[in-house]
Amino acid sequence: MNVHDLPTPALLVDVEAFEHNVTTMSAARPGAQLRPHVKAFKSTALANELRRAGHHAFCAATPREVVGMAAAGLGEDLLLANEVLDPGALRAMAECDGRVTVAVDSPETIAAAADNGIAEVLVDVDVGCFRCGCAPDDAGRLADLARDRGLEVRGVMGYEGHLMMEPGETRAERVAEAMSLLLDAHRQVGGDIVSGGGTGTCRENTWITELQAGSFTLMDTAYGSTDLPFRQALFLWLTVISVNQRGWAVADGGLKALAMDHGDPTMPDHTVLYCSDEHITFVPGPDGTLPAVGDRVRVLPAHVDPTVAKHERMHLVRGEDLLGTWPIDLRNW
Amino acid sequence: MNVHDLPTPALLVDVEAFEHNVTTMSAARPGAQLRPHVKAFKSTALANELRRAGHHAFCAATPREVVGMAAAGLGEDLLLANEVLDPGALRAMAECDGRVTVAVDSPETIAAAADNGIAEVLVDVDVGCFRCGCAPDDAGRLADLARDRGLEVRGVMGYEGHLMMEPGETRAERVAEAMSLLLDAHRQVGGDIVSGGGTGTCRENTWITELQAGSFTLMDTAYGSTDLPFRQALFLWLTVISVNQRGWAVADGGLKALAMDHGDPTMPDHTVLYCSDEHITFVPGPDGTLPAVGDRVRVLPAHVDPTVAKHERMHLVRGEDLLGTWPIDLRNW
Repeated sequence: MNVHDLPTPALLVDVEAFEHNVTTMSAARPGAQLRPHVKAFKSTALANELRRAGHHAFCAATPREVVGMAAAGLGEDLLLANEVLDPGALRAMAECDGRVTVAVDSPETIAAAADNGIAEVLVDVDVGCFRCGCAPDDAGRLADLARDRGLEVRGVMGYEGHLMMEPGETRAERVAEAMSLLLDAHRQVGGDIVSGGGTGTCRENTWITELQAGSFTLMDTAYGSTDLPFRQALFLWLTVISVNQRGWAVADGGLKALAMDHGDPTMPDHTVLYCSDEHITFVPGPDGTLPAVGDRVRVLPAHVDPTVAKHERMHLVRGEDLLGTWPIDLRNW
Repeated sequence: MNVHDLPTPALLVDVEAFEHNVTTMSAARPGAQLRPHVKAFKSTALANELRRAGHHAFCAATPREVVGMAAAGLGEDLLLANEVLDPGALRAMAECDGRVTVAVDSPETIAAAADNGIAEVLVDVDVGCFRCGCAPDDAGRLADLARDRGLEVRGVMGYEGHLMMEPGETRAERVAEAMSLLLDAHRQVGGDIVSGGGTGTCRENTWITELQAGSFTLMDTAYGSTDLPFRQALFLWLTVISVNQRGWAVADGGLKALAMDHGDPTMPDHTVLYCSDEHITFVPGPDGTLPAVGDRVRVLPAHVDPTVAKHERMHLVRGEDLLGTWPIDLRNW
């Protein structure tokens, strides 16, 4: 089947770029040194490719991602890298067919985990991201509290999310500062795991035992604007449905198909004017040519994670050949 | 059931505000003078409430919305207010159990409609929105072309989307200018329907036979910043999962639960710092109080349509009482 036969809007994965990205990351972080983050792609089929590349441990941002990974036979070592209080969600994870570790950062999250059958936790530490995580000097107390409640404490995690877009010249130094907080906490907590990082700090973060990264698989234009060695593998495939001779054209995907939190998406040969619910309006790029009604166009998402979450499936392409489909089966909560 | 028992993140609809909004709009635009736009809420259950309020004709932005409305018994008069070329999507609409009219703005979209069993069309006219629609002086030619292909031409549509946020003092004048283009086109095209407008121009657009509006039902903070007589009825309901004594708190919904194209969401009692995939980080509002871990908080979305499209359901609430659930059954494409 040819990509031109696909109904639009459709998400495409360039298999060659995807394979390059996985090979590159797996060489740098082989096996358990990488804990791929499924929140970026929300697909057990994609996760299976990472399993084949040697990565058996995954992390997730929602209970549904954890339970879905376990149901797909990918539950060897699942980390919910997030705080959860909901008893139903915790019990669903505790009862799923997998090994589940959850992040805790407070007496309340420890109690919720212990009360609902969770066996293993990591202490989540604030390393400067203005999000979850306990104060570094409180990590030992929380680990003791968790052990008192019968929980196995496997170590610590801390996400330096504020440094994912840090300029190259200061990135290593600032990651080292953030990770020194995590290592301080780890000395209090013990355990085998020091988990952190992301695609943006995959080279500089040499302090952790495992990297939590997912965006590297598919990439986006935000990460693409940095010096990372990964290629854009994700595209939105659209049909031009209207061409206005005053100088613009409109394709059939917009705010409901693309995440806008990192700004407008990009088009290789055109300049985006704006997006509305089901439309992207664009003007010609440097060559000055408007497309024709019925032409197909590629759009590059600005932010991969919330873009993927808007779709039911991704189509695998090599050039114009359609090779298969990955269901995006870990959507919603 | 109490709203505090709901797993989060969850979309809530304040039934009292919703009923106020429907009553207010139905009084101003009774019966066929309002063609509610299902793209704003993507729920046949909500559409049914509008049907009960006397509105039997609906419009939609995607073929799936049209087919889903027909399957739910709401197919009395469905307008796809958008251009479609895909033969499969056109045939699905032509074969659904309803009366379907589609927008056309080019020889290609007319040919696609005629070739795939569509019986009725509106000529879509560019009234200044930089999106779909033919040049106003080309509308007559396209209507002739459509009639030559055996299509029934019911009239014209033109969406003044660029004026939805126009300041009150210039709105009426600018809407009149845009609609004069549509009325010019209508004189060439003929037919009973002059369709246009939206929530933002619901009072000023006195030129059309029917208003295409959907956002008024649930509202958002973008429309809420204007002088419209509708109330915020849609909220994201979240649980506080982490509180940092350095001065912020984190709740369990973010970029995957909220549309960001109109900027950050708002919180009644707090100030939003930023959203990430599954988190919203906020600091205390004027009263200076941080919530506790486990507290629930309400978040007001900035843009209703793409926020609703991220969710599987909306929960109806009156105060803290949970009255029911509306599936968001018209998602995706």
